[in-house]
Amino acid sequence: MTARLADLSTADLAAFLADRQAAYAELQGKGLKLDLTRGKPSSEQLDLSNDLLRLPTTTVDRSGADARNYGGLEGLAELREIFAELLWVEPEQVLCGGNSSLSVMHQMITFLLLWGGPGSERPWKDEPAVKFICPVPGYDRHYTMLADFGIEMLTVPMHDDGPDVAAVRALVEADPAVKGIWIVPTYANPSGAVCSQEVAAELMSMPTAAPDFRIFWDNAYAFHHLTEDEAKSADALSLAAAAGHPDRPFLFASTSKITFAGAGVSVLALSPGNKAWYVKHLAMAAIGPDKVNHLRHVEFFKDADGVRAHMRKHRDIIAPKFQAVDAALTAELDGLGIAEWSKPSGGYFVNLDVLDGTASRVVRLAKEAGIALTPAGSAFPHSNDPNDRNIRLAPTFPSLADVETAMAGVATCVSLAAAEKLSDGG
Amino acid sequence: MTARLADLSTADLAAFLADRQAAYAELQGKGLKLDLTRGKPSSEQLDLSNDLLRLPTTTVDRSGADARNYGGLEGLAELREIFAELLWVEPEQVLCGGNSSLSVMHQMITFLLLWGGPGSERPWKDEPAVKFICPVPGYDRHYTMLADFGIEMLTVPMHDDGPDVAAVRALVEADPAVKGIWIVPTYANPSGAVCSQEVAAELMSMPTAAPDFRIFWDNAYAFHHLTEDEAKSADALSLAAAAGHPDRPFLFASTSKITFAGAGVSVLALSPGNKAWYVKHLAMAAIGPDKVNHLRHVEFFKDADGVRAHMRKHRDIIAPKFQAVDAALTAELDGLGIAEWSKPSGGYFVNLDVLDGTASRVVRLAKEAGIALTPAGSAFPHSNDPNDRNIRLAPTFPSLADVETAMAGVATCVSLAAAEKLSDGG
Repeated sequence: MTARLADLSTADLAAFLADRQAAYAELQGKGLKLDLTRGKPSSEQLDLSNDLLRLPTTTVDRSGADARNYGGLEGLAELREIFAELLWVEPEQVLCGGNSSLSVMHQMITFLLLWGGPGSERPWKDEPAVKFICPVPGYDRHYTMLADFGIEMLTVPMHDDGPDVAAVRALVEADPAVKGIWIVPTYANPSGAVCSQEVAAELMSMPTAAPDFRIFWDNAYAFHHLTEDEAKSADALSLAAAAGHPDRPFLFASTSKITFAGAGVSVLALSPGNKAWYVKHLAMAAIGPDKVNHLRHVEFFKDADGVRAHMRKHRDIIAPKFQAVDAALTAELDGLGIAEWSKPSGGYFVNLDVLDGTASRVVRLAKEAGIALTPAGSAFPHSNDPNDRNIRLAPTFPSLADVETAMAGVATCVSLAAAEKLSDGG
Repeated sequence: MTARLADLSTADLAAFLADRQAAYAELQGKGLKLDLTRGKPSSEQLDLSNDLLRLPTTTVDRSGADARNYGGLEGLAELREIFAELLWVEPEQVLCGGNSSLSVMHQMITFLLLWGGPGSERPWKDEPAVKFICPVPGYDRHYTMLADFGIEMLTVPMHDDGPDVAAVRALVEADPAVKGIWIVPTYANPSGAVCSQEVAAELMSMPTAAPDFRIFWDNAYAFHHLTEDEAKSADALSLAAAAGHPDRPFLFASTSKITFAGAGVSVLALSPGNKAWYVKHLAMAAIGPDKVNHLRHVEFFKDADGVRAHMRKHRDIIAPKFQAVDAALTAELDGLGIAEWSKPSGGYFVNLDVLDGTASRVVRLAKEAGIALTPAGSAFPHSNDPNDRNIRLAPTFPSLADVETAMAGVATCVSLAAAEKLSDGG
């Protein structure tokens, strides 16, 4: 099938549709129960870190402090050093916290709402409005969080080299209510895009109407390479400092997709001004993070190279799953002109764009065939994909065989939905 | 010395002062370096839980879920069951979280500020003012947190059976801006008081001008008995529900002073209405707590009796330190009429009230003799002890020998400061 589906004659399209309907009936007959919804590590990946269950072997950190007791608000120095090296920042700029960088992001916004930050004229809660820019497609949890805060979301397109800078500039220059942007700079969720040095430099240096504009630089996949061509994240903090906006970026990372998804450590890197501000308020909310878990991770990794070596073990497990996604989509959809998908070199997702107006239908068809996909539109604020075309695929959690089975089914659903749509005169 | 210091003749007082000055000079000569500032478990106490360092032995919880992965926002069911039994509530009312109940309290206030809670007419941030009642003496971190939030603090006396209910009633009935009260119901910090069933019942049933008045029931020492006469905390949730105010109390606890101070688990118990509200917003801030640490604690404790047995081991270590505090104060100060101190049957602190106007002086004298005490006044909002008389002693962290040495020194400082004050005509 090399002809584009839209170019088929009515008869050929009808034949194609009938063929796909038959394939779908067969798919339904298989009684599948597969799940591609969430970006979760598989058990096999988690097993890579099982030595953590018998660590730490000591209870005392490098400074001689008892890791079991209270204190150490900024996190274990030796862990901060490892992530400073990995993120190309200074250890003094890094804080290590609890098991969730998402929680740190949420806390950061609450702090800005309640107190404002360095450069703020007032607490954000006292502003007439607060708006965030959201490159789309993006991460659903960023959007649901902003919605819960009552923060208005303005979308801009996400390109292969990062957010559309011209669109971002237009928004931040025009409106002082635009206080923030969320960016997943490396192997973005879900597009896989890597924010280029040039785009990052523009974002960190552009003029903004708000004096306290913040870039939430969610580098969740900084080390999560799928190939040997390892992307290097732009150095957001240095770029911002060089441009005279040191307090603009907050850099977030975590070991959630490095060690245990639910029992890792979060990493925050920020300017001296932001750090003093954040720690001042954090000191009211916490006596210190779980330093035993910090020590456990330090003993496990030993150093930054330990993290890098560990990530290659993840790559060996999950890269074949991404290849299986591409193979299944290519086998059934290549050349039909009804779908495009990313071939990410890192991260946790494949971005699948289907024929406009069919994404919801594809997800429903898949569900009725026992294949759970992330709800259509979830990569957009308020789950509103204006073209009903985007589907996020998360292939890491199921086994390779299940990914192959599920994706063959998804491809069938994509082609069936497109044939239905085109047959309707769509 | 059985005569009250205030009753001494001028000559006898001068002789007493000279004697105390000599004793203080001798104390200074010892070159001590001791610390009674914080309620931290000692290394020996932490060692009681070192089996945690080799747990869990499995990675799967009772439901079959992988504890290492994301999810499980409410915490591990088996851990929630253990603390439900210990706190006399239902497992469905309990959530288990990260390593700090203080963080949960902070988050609870941010949620109320940003969104209001069940019964709120508006988010607390949109109220003209928000005020909390603070029984004094109390826990300094409660006050610093409220101060950071800009919440006004109104003090009421803390009695042996809990907060002064008449004073509390007068405040909550008169002013709808009074939105909350902080209570440490069991072995209160620092007084050691235990809130009686009667006081608890009144607090849970009293009329309040605010429709969304909240009681922050910080049961940090619920299981932390120093004698075999174990206090049973009043059942705040049932009392409130019976009185028609189910959403009034939030109950907080943690294992910070049970297992590892910095690496334990927090416990929250609340009404169905509060739970639905809290979890709705929590779901935006977290994917789940560290369930591996939950599983680790479940394997360690096994059941509620495991916690109780473990607490008796703590008691065996720390009860002698509290006896040493009492012995040192009694030996030097009994009958002088210049100091009163608590003899707590649980908790982490001894409350020492010295001669009015001398607490700051005592703390300074102690410091200059190498004995660090909590700053005078820290058990009051804004560190303002109107009588300059209250000192919080925390004897758990140092060794027994150090407690004995430090407390003999503190007693010397107390008597010297009193003699100075009385000699000045105070």
